[in-house]
Amino acid sequence: MHGCQRMSDLSRADSVGLVIPEVYRHEAPFALQCGVTLESFELVYETYGELNDQASNAVLVCHALSGHHHAAGFHEVSESRPGWWDNCIGPGKPIDTRQFYVVSLNNLGGCHGSTGPCSINPRTGSAFGPDFPLVTVSDWVRSQTLLADDLGIRQFAAIIGGSLGGMQAMQWAIDFPDRLHAAVLIACASKLSAQNIAFNEIARQAILTDAEFHDGKYREQGTNPDIGLMLARMLGHVTYLSDDGMRQKFGRQLKSGDLSLGQDVEFQVESYLNHQGRSFSKQFDANTYLLMTRALDYFDPARVYQDDLVLALSNALCKFFVISFTTDWRFSVERSKEIVDALVKARKDVASTVIESDHGHDSFLLPIPRYFEVLSAYMGQLHHEIGDAR
Amino acid sequence: MHGCQRMSDLSRADSVGLVIPEVYRHEAPFALQCGVTLESFELVYETYGELNDQASNAVLVCHALSGHHHAAGFHEVSESRPGWWDNCIGPGKPIDTRQFYVVSLNNLGGCHGSTGPCSINPRTGSAFGPDFPLVTVSDWVRSQTLLADDLGIRQFAAIIGGSLGGMQAMQWAIDFPDRLHAAVLIACASKLSAQNIAFNEIARQAILTDAEFHDGKYREQGTNPDIGLMLARMLGHVTYLSDDGMRQKFGRQLKSGDLSLGQDVEFQVESYLNHQGRSFSKQFDANTYLLMTRALDYFDPARVYQDDLVLALSNALCKFFVISFTTDWRFSVERSKEIVDALVKARKDVASTVIESDHGHDSFLLPIPRYFEVLSAYMGQLHHEIGDAR
Repeated sequence: MHGCQRMSDLSRADSVGLVIPEVYRHEAPFALQCGVTLESFELVYETYGELNDQASNAVLVCHALSGHHHAAGFHEVSESRPGWWDNCIGPGKPIDTRQFYVVSLNNLGGCHGSTGPCSINPRTGSAFGPDFPLVTVSDWVRSQTLLADDLGIRQFAAIIGGSLGGMQAMQWAIDFPDRLHAAVLIACASKLSAQNIAFNEIARQAILTDAEFHDGKYREQGTNPDIGLMLARMLGHVTYLSDDGMRQKFGRQLKSGDLSLGQDVEFQVESYLNHQGRSFSKQFDANTYLLMTRALDYFDPARVYQDDLVLALSNALCKFFVISFTTDWRFSVERSKEIVDALVKARKDVASTVIESDHGHDSFLLPIPRYFEVLSAYMGQLHHEIGDAR
Repeated sequence: MHGCQRMSDLSRADSVGLVIPEVYRHEAPFALQCGVTLESFELVYETYGELNDQASNAVLVCHALSGHHHAAGFHEVSESRPGWWDNCIGPGKPIDTRQFYVVSLNNLGGCHGSTGPCSINPRTGSAFGPDFPLVTVSDWVRSQTLLADDLGIRQFAAIIGGSLGGMQAMQWAIDFPDRLHAAVLIACASKLSAQNIAFNEIARQAILTDAEFHDGKYREQGTNPDIGLMLARMLGHVTYLSDDGMRQKFGRQLKSGDLSLGQDVEFQVESYLNHQGRSFSKQFDANTYLLMTRALDYFDPARVYQDDLVLALSNALCKFFVISFTTDWRFSVERSKEIVDALVKARKDVASTVIESDHGHDSFLLPIPRYFEVLSAYMGQLHHEIGDAR
């Protein structure tokens, strides 16, 4: 029965259907911001829709902390769930694949096929593991320009991302102003707060202190820091939800009918988080998790502009759409307002909206009606602006 | 020089000076809410000030999650810091020991001298460890009544606590209405939210999954779950501070002068949290930490009153003072308002105030001028009400 369900999902008119990941190979040295040079690298990516003749209708989707290239559609008929942003990408959806050619990649340092800690280091013949160099948001953006070159995309109609994905879109606007028509920054911030960094540090410590971490060489030991990853994910997950949203979803509901007053898991929220944490630890590489959280912590594009965000954004040529959610306390409405204020001061074309939602930071992944309506309208306007001469 | 500093602290006019902990021994069975009966128990406690002839000027101070009996003064001249609430308890301080006889104990299940997981189980001859039964806030309150009986205190002038300590004061008002004149509930809630429980669960999982936990029998193995306790404390600590407070204290300050783009600790907030976590793991027992967080999770006095807090509080006879802090997001102002609203609906004598503070939940431990002024005024009024005929 589940198979039938998936078949019908696959064949729905608003699904991009079956997709096949592709690989971009960069066979030349690539110098990272940290000083290390990769001799070559690969990026795994997917595309949905068709590039028009002027190559003007491309949209780059940048993923967040634990995301990857598989944003929409299905890899095979038996796949249990579609890509992570399937509700937003497809025919008739906010990022409409009848209008746009969507590119979604796994970032450098990832663990879903792009060159990262799990890849073979050509210099040693064994996996990079903990020796994979630190990658920054700027590095990601530069690597994405190479992918764009390879795909024949000189200028994206839009670069879109939520959370860490929005930070990449912001960095594009600063570093490569003529290569995007619009940046859509969703549930992000211009830099992390001390509290954000603190949560990331606790997650990292959980991984680093796991007895199975072995200084990052867990694969050589035939093991995995499952517990550290589980704790990191549980913590992350709590910060992605809101207090209100958790109250609605779980309240103080008990796992069984009544209080047992024992040491076992008692409340449903505990059971849920445990499950989330355990399944994540089977799917995600610990060294990549460390790398991704470091990239988040270090993101601070104003730093090289005298800590002046207005100055940092002053070279941008694209238009901006900044979206935030009322109960997001990880990257709150206030943090988006800082970006909007800086863009206004820098005299940029900026639209912004605050979406009412009970779902905290996770809201950016959810099909909240008003969110999707305004995003659809904005994307429709972009499509009008770039002109469609497919 | 530090010695001289401490000497002068000790001899300051507003210090209670040197204090000697005492032990109350209950040599009869004590049935816990979970169904287990302790054959006997001990509570370690301290007192400051003098009990008047009518025994009407006693104040009970209840401690929070990681607190203990040593609330004020010094145990010895060489002690580096005074008790945990020394800024609030002493001659001329908000809880003025010239007016009140202050009792502060380590709760049952604690790890600072009262009967708990580190104590010898008389039935087995070895430490309880993980077999120490679950203790609830109601159990604590009942054990505290026995200590009060032993001290000749029929009715406390006030029972005061912050956080989990405030929950004990609330439970006293419900379970033993004629044994307190006033309850002072600071930075607390009538029950934990799903988010609160989730943070506690992550802390517990960090301890339970530590390779050195050994199902709670770490002492028999000659080891300690230092890492789990460290992570639990780091996480707790972040939730005790506010985003604003952390921004002011740490911002994005780097540990060294510039970004090293490495995997080491880079931001000062990381360094601070690591230190806090590591020192805590040397001082606190893991089984006690599990027990205390469970007591927090289970606290829900309205549960046996048809989930109606108004009904639960309707039998209370004491007056109430409810204090909360603007940036406390662990037990927010809203949670205190719920208590105040229920007290008003139950037609109780209630005063309340919201204190502006950048320091989050930790505010209740800090000498914030307006906080201490109103607490002093309230305590002065109580002193007037009980009459002083020492």
